Amino acid sequence: MSGPELWRELGQQLRVDAVRASAEAGSGHPTSSMSAADLAAVLLADHFRYDLDDPKSPANDRLIFSKGHASPLVYGLFRAAGAISEEEFMTYRQLGSRLQGHPTPVLPWVDVATGSLGQGLPIGVGLALAGKRLDRLPFRVWVICGDSEMAEGSMWEAIEHAAFYELANLTAIIDVNRLGQRGETMHGWNLDYYSARLRSCGWRAIEIDGHDVEAVDAAYREAEASDRPTAVVAKTLKGKGYSKVEDQEGWHGKAVAEEGVQELGGVRNIRIDLPKPEARERHRFDTPGGEWPRYEVGSSVETRKAYGEALAALGDDRSDVVALDGEVSNSTYAEIFRDAHPDRYFEMYIAEQQLVAAAVGMQVLGWKPFASSFAAFMSRAYDFIRMAAISRANLRLCGSHAGVSIGEDGPSQMALEDLAAFRAVHGSTVLYPCDGNQTAKLVAAMGDLDGISFLRTTRAKTPVIYSPDDDFPIGGAKVPRDGDDVTLIGAGITLHEALEAAESLDAEGVSARVIDLYSVKPIDVATLRESAEATQGRVVVAEDHWAEGGLGEAVLSALVGLELSFEHLAVREMPGSGTPDELLSAAGIDAEHIADAARKLVQAEAVAR
Amino acid sequence: MSGPELWRELGQQLRVDAVRASAEAGSGHPTSSMSAADLAAVLLADHFRYDLDDPKSPANDRLIFSKGHASPLVYGLFRAAGAISEEEFMTYRQLGSRLQGHPTPVLPWVDVATGSLGQGLPIGVGLALAGKRLDRLPFRVWVICGDSEMAEGSMWEAIEHAAFYELANLTAIIDVNRLGQRGETMHGWNLDYYSARLRSCGWRAIEIDGHDVEAVDAAYREAEASDRPTAVVAKTLKGKGYSKVEDQEGWHGKAVAEEGVQELGGVRNIRIDLPKPEARERHRFDTPGGEWPRYEVGSSVETRKAYGEALAALGDDRSDVVALDGEVSNSTYAEIFRDAHPDRYFEMYIAEQQLVAAAVGMQVLGWKPFASSFAAFMSRAYDFIRMAAISRANLRLCGSHAGVSIGEDGPSQMALEDLAAFRAVHGSTVLYPCDGNQTAKLVAAMGDLDGISFLRTTRAKTPVIYSPDDDFPIGGAKVPRDGDDVTLIGAGITLHEALEAAESLDAEGVSARVIDLYSVKPIDVATLRESAEATQGRVVVAEDHWAEGGLGEAVLSALVGLELSFEHLAVREMPGSGTPDELLSAAGIDAEHIADAARKLVQAEAVAR
Repeated sequence: MSGPELWRELGQQLRVDAVRASAEAGSGHPTSSMSAADLAAVLLADHFRYDLDDPKSPANDRLIFSKGHASPLVYGLFRAAGAISEEEFMTYRQLGSRLQGHPTPVLPWVDVATGSLGQGLPIGVGLALAGKRLDRLPFRVWVICGDSEMAEGSMWEAIEHAAFYELANLTAIIDVNRLGQRGETMHGWNLDYYSARLRSCGWRAIEIDGHDVEAVDAAYREAEASDRPTAVVAKTLKGKGYSKVEDQEGWHGKAVAEEGVQELGGVRNIRIDLPKPEARERHRFDTPGGEWPRYEVGSSVETRKAYGEALAALGDDRSDVVALDGEVSNSTYAEIFRDAHPDRYFEMYIAEQQLVAAAVGMQVLGWKPFASSFAAFMSRAYDFIRMAAISRANLRLCGSHAGVSIGEDGPSQMALEDLAAFRAVHGSTVLYPCDGNQTAKLVAAMGDLDGISFLRTTRAKTPVIYSPDDDFPIGGAKVPRDGDDVTLIGAGITLHEALEAAESLDAEGVSARVIDLYSVKPIDVATLRESAEATQGRVVVAEDHWAEGGLGEAVLSALVGLELSFEHLAVREMPGSGTPDELLSAAGIDAEHIADAARKLVQAEAVAR
Repeated sequence: MSGPELWRELGQQLRVDAVRASAEAGSGHPTSSMSAADLAAVLLADHFRYDLDDPKSPANDRLIFSKGHASPLVYGLFRAAGAISEEEFMTYRQLGSRLQGHPTPVLPWVDVATGSLGQGLPIGVGLALAGKRLDRLPFRVWVICGDSEMAEGSMWEAIEHAAFYELANLTAIIDVNRLGQRGETMHGWNLDYYSARLRSCGWRAIEIDGHDVEAVDAAYREAEASDRPTAVVAKTLKGKGYSKVEDQEGWHGKAVAEEGVQELGGVRNIRIDLPKPEARERHRFDTPGGEWPRYEVGSSVETRKAYGEALAALGDDRSDVVALDGEVSNSTYAEIFRDAHPDRYFEMYIAEQQLVAAAVGMQVLGWKPFASSFAAFMSRAYDFIRMAAISRANLRLCGSHAGVSIGEDGPSQMALEDLAAFRAVHGSTVLYPCDGNQTAKLVAAMGDLDGISFLRTTRAKTPVIYSPDDDFPIGGAKVPRDGDDVTLIGAGITLHEALEAAESLDAEGVSARVIDLYSVKPIDVATLRESAEATQGRVVVAEDHWAEGGLGEAVLSALVGLELSFEHLAVREMPGSGTPDELLSAAGIDAEHIADAARKLVQAEAVAR
């Protein structure tokens, strides 16, 4: 069996399998799978080149289900390709099964988790960019999209960027089944609407009947030959093939009865042997080596600038390091990397979702992307970061301009929630350096970190207090000043305030220990507990962040069970504009307030005695 | 002076003022203001109807600077309109000044904070929707957009929704000055690109020279007469009028020298008397009154369903309550409100940024929007929520399907970071009910709350344990079970697990007190401390959330200074699919694990004794 007959039969098999798996599970999205089954069948049978035994091969085509809820279809494809057994197939949605409700990389043939709509296509842009500009290999990126998710702005960020970067290796297959979760989409079967929008962005758009397998095949051939990104805009029927649910409302995300299997002609066991792509070497960039930045103790430099300089140096050493920025590279200093390694730099413009998604796509292929923007604007991509953790992505993010210390620009530009947000990402590493040498070492360490790491940098110049030869292990803390009356904890900008506070306390005979909590997560529990105990439980934390979820609460978690006299200085009122010093003072997190808080703790105990 | 002469002179005045204010401040974005000055001048002089003495009047036109960094232009307009004095004008960006680096509603004529790009137009959609469908008044919404921010997908969510809802009362003025922060935008002066995209979405697009004031006026007249949303796509010069910076790179966000004032022809003091709009009554919806939902103790109901039923009842009582949902109203149960009050319900499709932005726009006019989606997908709008706090917006958000307890759908659909994210929003209220009656009371309370409130609901049915007549004050906690050996703290789904644990502990002679922390923020410090002390500092917290920034850390902050034996049960490994019970157990947050943790605390102390 081959050609149209095969495609049709395989389409039916995929529909039958979607019905079977979700009927067994008692939940799932069979109808959303059935609409796209013919689109997927033709792709698998005659277009997709993939080595199942080597899923990470850079020669492989990539397939992303942006409409991740069509997971029965994803798993049906794997069954048809012989990657999973019938037995495993029927474990869909059970505890411990690799076949989760939405696809995740627990399965080796799934590159990224989907299920939050609107993310697969932007990630596909990252993969296609890597194929064109990094690996320089002719693999294709296929993304199966739902029509509902075309309402997500992130899809149009992807469409704009794909056209701008002329990603002819990217094909979006839009399954226009007309029906969203709770009713019709905005545009129903108005295929022309989608096509016109796509074309206005510079895409090729091909409208077809998504159940006409020959038209599907022809469209894919056209996409493969296209000189630009191509969308196959396919009119389909949700629940296609089972009359009880076909094109009916009220069947989204619901298992349908096994009787559907009969109407669809029963179980099939077609097996597709995927053609392996030709083995090819991926491009590697030259690594000239070079100087690692070293800052003189006593000088001053912005940690954001040290980020850029260290990243450029890391690129000198490592071929796999790439950088992306969201149109603020002269603020984050990613421009230093761009100037040093223009071929490995990607301008993502003011589109933070696409920025993070592109990085997620690139890391699938083993690249080590560092993506930067203002830390405040990382909040724009928070859903993408959350999903990246489910994707087991190795992602390096840098957010600059943290906190009120940015000064005059005002609160819209101040990240004050980023530590809380990033701490609450599974497996994340959260770093917040206070000086240039520390920043450089942490950037180097990020190159080897798994999972999602976030580096928070500061706009202002800060004094260099550490030697370029000091080490800053992830999960560690520094104690730049010893003392036994009170522990002052800061990080980034407030570390310097804490040091200044310690100085003035010292003049009054109060001996303050200062802890530099540069590794906010993981946190150095041992050093913190030791210090708290050495200072009779007196602890002051100062952070340029809201009071919730940041340094203060991280420290409390680390010190749980100890008897503490604890003062938590954090930003508690909405800041406005002002100079950095004025705003640090107004927020009550500068040296003077830290010293006051320390005095209060020391005196309270003196009174108690 | 009137007509073109006035427009041109006023445009020069606005440019001069942008130069003056930012030169005095030593920072700011004069060049981004200068490009849009003529566009703003014509608007102010001859199109904008506004009562400066009654900024909240529903008859007023609304003006949003989506490109919020053009704040010198915003404040220059207020000076020209006589709203602020020359003296105040020159306080730009100083500590305590209302004239912050980016506009905020500290100024009564600024409706919403901008400065995170891509947000003004989606908020404008909310205002225009309110004008058309809620207030039913003929005011116009004008939004001045930058070209750089057109890369944000949220702008295209707004454009799609504006066309779908046929918002002829909305005009976007796109200031295409070609230059972003660090260089040229993707499309430079390719006005056709923007126009084609806008038209493909159903907008009218008018291309003009943005410094040809007569063309600007004609375009505005066309927009005012348009039967659909209209974009004025204006080619402009960044830094227009001062040769040293005009159309030059490297001048974004930098003060320019006072010498620019001379080249621009010196200081002017044109004063525009804004025409006041005709006073009109806003539409009010009927409030039929009706039954408040009451759930029988011992029955069970999903808290998400109680949300929908209570919201519908609130709409029966209050004319100002409206609801929006992101295409999941049959999951969040916002559909119950939709069916009861179709005229006050807005389907925002799968576009969570637009969902939240529309709510922000509507609350400007005094409406009380409740916006709902899966709690996981609220992360998509986190930047909008952060900015809404700076806007001093009164926003009610409901996130359903929280935590691993959703079961089979898997981690992409599970909110596990939402409590951390929402706690770290300034002035927020975070609520997490465990039963139907509690949910209903909290929904009622949200109707009167200022600031941003978030209600976290659960997918599964949970037992009704409270009477419909119980009260649940914001900032309170319930103690549904008393005891003196150990305190068990839960909320939502884990509250029921804690109660079950207490039951089994009781059988072993361990007396557990249970606290229902339905008000996560503000938190009931007194009840928590009293309970911890009454149970010898033994406290177990169980939460269906990551360990960071949620219930556990909120409790630690509340109990700071007490000597605790603390066990924190939270989700610590990436969950997969499974039944709710399986996943609660796998995460270690079910009754059995809570009881084990409690035993450990009690026994440890027994051993110590």
